[in-house]
Amino acid sequence: MKLVSYELAGAVRLGRIDPEAGKIYPLGDSETAYGNDMVALIERHPVLNTALPTEDSGVALDQVKILAPIPSPRKNIFCVGKNYFEHAQEFTQSGFDATSKRGDNVPDNPIIFTKAPTTVIAPGDDVPLHAEQSTQMDYEAELAVIIGTGGRGISKAAAFDHVFGYTIANDVTARDLQLKHRQWFIGKSLDGTCPMGPYIATADEIDAENLTIQCWVNGELRQDANSRDLIFDIPTLIETLSAGITLEPGDIISTGTPAGVGIGFDPPRFLAPGDVVKIEIEGLGILENTIA
Amino acid sequence: MKLVSYELAGAVRLGRIDPEAGKIYPLGDSETAYGNDMVALIERHPVLNTALPTEDSGVALDQVKILAPIPSPRKNIFCVGKNYFEHAQEFTQSGFDATSKRGDNVPDNPIIFTKAPTTVIAPGDDVPLHAEQSTQMDYEAELAVIIGTGGRGISKAAAFDHVFGYTIANDVTARDLQLKHRQWFIGKSLDGTCPMGPYIATADEIDAENLTIQCWVNGELRQDANSRDLIFDIPTLIETLSAGITLEPGDIISTGTPAGVGIGFDPPRFLAPGDVVKIEIEGLGILENTIA
Repeated sequence: MKLVSYELAGAVRLGRIDPEAGKIYPLGDSETAYGNDMVALIERHPVLNTALPTEDSGVALDQVKILAPIPSPRKNIFCVGKNYFEHAQEFTQSGFDATSKRGDNVPDNPIIFTKAPTTVIAPGDDVPLHAEQSTQMDYEAELAVIIGTGGRGISKAAAFDHVFGYTIANDVTARDLQLKHRQWFIGKSLDGTCPMGPYIATADEIDAENLTIQCWVNGELRQDANSRDLIFDIPTLIETLSAGITLEPGDIISTGTPAGVGIGFDPPRFLAPGDVVKIEIEGLGILENTIA
Repeated sequence: MKLVSYELAGAVRLGRIDPEAGKIYPLGDSETAYGNDMVALIERHPVLNTALPTEDSGVALDQVKILAPIPSPRKNIFCVGKNYFEHAQEFTQSGFDATSKRGDNVPDNPIIFTKAPTTVIAPGDDVPLHAEQSTQMDYEAELAVIIGTGGRGISKAAAFDHVFGYTIANDVTARDLQLKHRQWFIGKSLDGTCPMGPYIATADEIDAENLTIQCWVNGELRQDANSRDLIFDIPTLIETLSAGITLEPGDIISTGTPAGVGIGFDPPRFLAPGDVVKIEIEGLGILENTIA
């Protein structure tokens, strides 16, 4: 099932999206059962293998505003650094990583940082350039995992049982701030730097370990990879995080970006006003945002 | 006003604590106005210079369980690394900081990382040792700032107008994980590693730039400092964070720990089961927790 949070006539609702038909079918109990809150839906249905009941008549996509599937996460987004081999190399060589030493391209253990909930914006929303804070804004196309059943001490073998579904995230990064503050949080957490969506595809629909991930800037293909090439795969990430940290329904883990970000070029190609960043992941649709 | 979240007969309530009298005076409208949620109270009264009405008859402290003042923060806690000169030196010299290079003792810019909301525990709660994940657990006594009026682009001059109050935090840290994962998040976010409280003293009561901060382990004084010695003071932290990140009511900024943590000793003195960590900050009471 492909679930969306959307706004119609000023009210937020949950629905099922049918991208081919260009329609959203509202969940009949969006308000009564879930308070129109995707995390409440996930808490109620942490594993969703069957379609939830929807209203028969759909709403055309051009009648609504699609929101991020979880517009206001209840905690920061868990993010993974340097989790594709070629990207780990391009990032280390760029000189923008305060945590790496020479020759130290690929991490021995997952590198985890967070983005504040205030970074989350909708598909189509403008990404603020933050020109006063940064002159080096960059894009990062990522597959994001949405936790269904929470827990601690989740083994690799059990990890996928804890996944509710998947969506697309753009981990927009202020490279200068990422370097300047050493820990990456500030460079990763400027307002509006986490476009997410357009929908959550539930786990039963997705082969998460074999998804094409592509990113275009102004129509030029910059990132073109497959989730099978993650250095630390999804089970490893869930096992590592949950070893000492209780995961909760609706938690978001953005799994890291492949090669082809702006700092991978020489000279680097940072984002400029008007640039359009489009990300497509197999089965998860298209996430497109303009830099403002 | 000294505000507490507490539990009585299984129900969470907000109240005013009088530590000398050993009593809590329940807020009459704790349920009706705030849903017993401290963040809702802060949203309603972002600047609190007068006492809120309480019930006349107090409850004795031994009748209640004091909770962390904000038991479930709505986002990760903002934390500051290496923010006292002598601690910055002891940490760099310890070899546990993946982000520092030789001779690179004192940061040029604030180092910001986060702790997950699931780290927060109450005064008196046991801190789990997490022996399977870490053999190097350490304490960090810290002054925590609670944001009242949110905003972005807050200047140093206006910063204190955005502070609701202050409390104590113990930024318990798994040093081995902090080093192993390079970014500090995992080493800082194991469950139960952020004891907080016992109360929030509103800003009008506290001279935050001149507070004695002390920490004892099993009665031995380990940290003894003053908040005036912060490298990046509270206005600088608020200006830096809010430059590109919208701060919201109830946000928590833990300002960093002074010298005297376990890795400051040679050999390091890590926490062991049964150790009692007691932190006292002038005007903010005592936060005491046992390692379990």
